[in-house]
Amino acid sequence: MQVFETIAAFRTARKGYAALGFVPTMGFLHEGHLGLVRRAKAENGAVAVSIFVNPTQFGPNEDYASYPRDPDRDLALLKDAGADLVFLPTPDVLYPPGFATRIEAGGVADELEGQSRPGHFSGVATVVTKLFNIVQPQRAYFGQKDAQQCAVVRRFVADLDIPVEIVVCDIARETDGLARSSRNVRLTPENRQKAPALYEALQEAARLFRSGERNTDVLEGALRVSLIKAGLPDIDYATVVNADTFRREGSCSENALALLAVKAGAVRLIDNMPL
Amino acid sequence: MQVFETIAAFRTARKGYAALGFVPTMGFLHEGHLGLVRRAKAENGAVAVSIFVNPTQFGPNEDYASYPRDPDRDLALLKDAGADLVFLPTPDVLYPPGFATRIEAGGVADELEGQSRPGHFSGVATVVTKLFNIVQPQRAYFGQKDAQQCAVVRRFVADLDIPVEIVVCDIARETDGLARSSRNVRLTPENRQKAPALYEALQEAARLFRSGERNTDVLEGALRVSLIKAGLPDIDYATVVNADTFRREGSCSENALALLAVKAGAVRLIDNMPL
Repeated sequence: MQVFETIAAFRTARKGYAALGFVPTMGFLHEGHLGLVRRAKAENGAVAVSIFVNPTQFGPNEDYASYPRDPDRDLALLKDAGADLVFLPTPDVLYPPGFATRIEAGGVADELEGQSRPGHFSGVATVVTKLFNIVQPQRAYFGQKDAQQCAVVRRFVADLDIPVEIVVCDIARETDGLARSSRNVRLTPENRQKAPALYEALQEAARLFRSGERNTDVLEGALRVSLIKAGLPDIDYATVVNADTFRREGSCSENALALLAVKAGAVRLIDNMPL
Repeated sequence: MQVFETIAAFRTARKGYAALGFVPTMGFLHEGHLGLVRRAKAENGAVAVSIFVNPTQFGPNEDYASYPRDPDRDLALLKDAGADLVFLPTPDVLYPPGFATRIEAGGVADELEGQSRPGHFSGVATVVTKLFNIVQPQRAYFGQKDAQQCAVVRRFVADLDIPVEIVVCDIARETDGLARSSRNVRLTPENRQKAPALYEALQEAARLFRSGERNTDVLEGALRVSLIKAGLPDIDYATVVNADTFRREGSCSENALALLAVKAGAVRLIDNMPL
């Protein structure tokens, strides 16, 4: 496994691979990331991973500074998972003085997270486009946990004709159902105990949907009740949307997607489930 | 020479070339474009040309509808010039339903044309990025006539790490000095006679600069006087800027660039000259 901090060095090494899968990450890797790495390796013969906590996708009052980081542990995990190339730039490598460009992903990017976190998806679209141009993979792998991010990436990759196939992989969960996330380590013991309630709320909404419920108000009410009962009342959103548009519809279509964003103390947790 | 109207067909043909130069155009080709095509062919062994009047870089009151078009003549000229691949998409090929992404080029894009034509450079950056992703050239060739566009392209290509080398070529001029432009055919005979005054005004400013003049007000005054005397008083801008930043400085630096945008009847003419 080779590790590079500069674009030029990475590009030189990249020439040694005809095909490459790619997993962009913000580090502090968990089993969700490692599953993507193993699948990318299996499907492309070789895999590149980037580790970069991208400052431009964090708002001024968000957790950029406190986002967990442990590159040494990440590199050990990536070596075990079979990574071939790792790109580990510092912010000044990707955003040198004079940097002035941003990609505005419209459409799905304007909903939910786009409203809760202004500028977030523009930061994501810009850095992912940069990373794709540096890594030049055949396929890139993303986790369904960031469902809206996956839809945004598909949108701008199609719109900009970027020649990379986007592969979305299932959510990796802890044994109690909590979606794996780098931010989970920052939960207090008490909130860690409450956190599986997100998954349980989604399961409850899925049960209602399977039993025929299509009224969005009712499904959203059930999500909220589950969260509040579990002691997680600080709900950013608990909604059911059309999975193509990420827009709420009064009566759910068949491709309904339930989405949650909840604050558990200082930690913002997200989760989702197709209904 | 092969001509394609769809992205998929172009991409299939593109695989037949290891290296490719690229000249993006809006068609109605003149000797300026053909010079770029011949140079791209010589420097890369093969050359692709796109012909696309990009609606997103025209403002609502600009000349998108009346922009001159003659694809049959263009294709004959390109064949003579040695073009290998031509990409001739319709707007719906590049902007299908649901298209929602735009690239905002900041920095130099905020000055001059960026102020006269809001959204223009965003349209340019978005379509050029798309074309680069479709054509995947080693090098792309642009004319210095669109000096600010060249600076904008260099900026977003660097910022997004797009692996394409940008080559800027000298302005092609008519024998009387008028910069070649697809829009020149729309000049009335009277305005066609006046139009070389742009080049003459730039030469006058260059003479003053060579004689030691560094006061931007004086140089700009000379540009304006020349244009008004020649019967072209409808000046959008007549300015001297730093060629790196496209910002005006009270006292010119050594890399000063004089730029003109002038309306001659319904036709907007631009020209520029390093001083």
